[in-house]
Amino acid sequence: MEARVSLVTLGVRDLARARRFYEALGWTTRAGAEDEVAFFQAGGMVLALWDRAKLAEDTGVPDGGGWGGITLAHNVRSPREVDAVLARAEAAGATLARRGGETFWGGYAGVFVDPEGHPWEVAHNPFWTLDAAGRVTLPD
Amino acid sequence: MEARVSLVTLGVRDLARARRFYEALGWTTRAGAEDEVAFFQAGGMVLALWDRAKLAEDTGVPDGGGWGGITLAHNVRSPREVDAVLARAEAAGATLARRGGETFWGGYAGVFVDPEGHPWEVAHNPFWTLDAAGRVTLPD
Repeated sequence: MEARVSLVTLGVRDLARARRFYEALGWTTRAGAEDEVAFFQAGGMVLALWDRAKLAEDTGVPDGGGWGGITLAHNVRSPREVDAVLARAEAAGATLARRGGETFWGGYAGVFVDPEGHPWEVAHNPFWTLDAAGRVTLPD
Repeated sequence: MEARVSLVTLGVRDLARARRFYEALGWTTRAGAEDEVAFFQAGGMVLALWDRAKLAEDTGVPDGGGWGGITLAHNVRSPREVDAVLARAEAAGATLARRGGETFWGGYAGVFVDPEGHPWEVAHNPFWTLDAAGRVTLPD
């Protein structure tokens, strides 16, 4: 198995609202109001929004109902950009679980929670390389 | 906000077991037994394993305890490769939530659940491009 993630599907209860939220962040989808799923090209992978009950059934797992132990992160190039992304997310309808601030691991980060309860850490990690395309590389 | 995911952190209760599972799948980490987190380079992003209670606290969310509405997917180049990855995951300690088979959307896929309860769909999607590096591109 190659070490990569092709697709992250976020289960949602209100697809139109979730789609509008990610579009307001600047993400692009070809999905319209008639589509049952919204795919967003996200670098070399895809982020999908799909009905949470259908996703649970398709995945073959019972839904715990809340957060399930997965946090996504979006790394940026400066602490200032962390604050800018958090502000944009809040303006688009996210709640801030943690405002931007210095972290115990020596970076600067905050957390927003999307309208469906999925959290994103927005982080500046000075120890990880972020290339022009946004790809992250671990240090040697 | 650029459309990309930098890091997916999976909350785990038994880090050593989870690390061994992903290593058995062929993933590589520099983390050893003394480390509190294991990072795996996964294409242009990173997969991390970290204590689930600490992740919940750091994220600022209550833990629902089960699955939380996120399913990861790993796309491969053929139906046969789907079955091979599922078999390898099962041998490494995963449970199969869905055996490989044809899907309603015209592909071939199955689902394994890692030892910590995080599901992965393993899929061959004939409509999406998978390049040599494993990057997925949505159709135009």
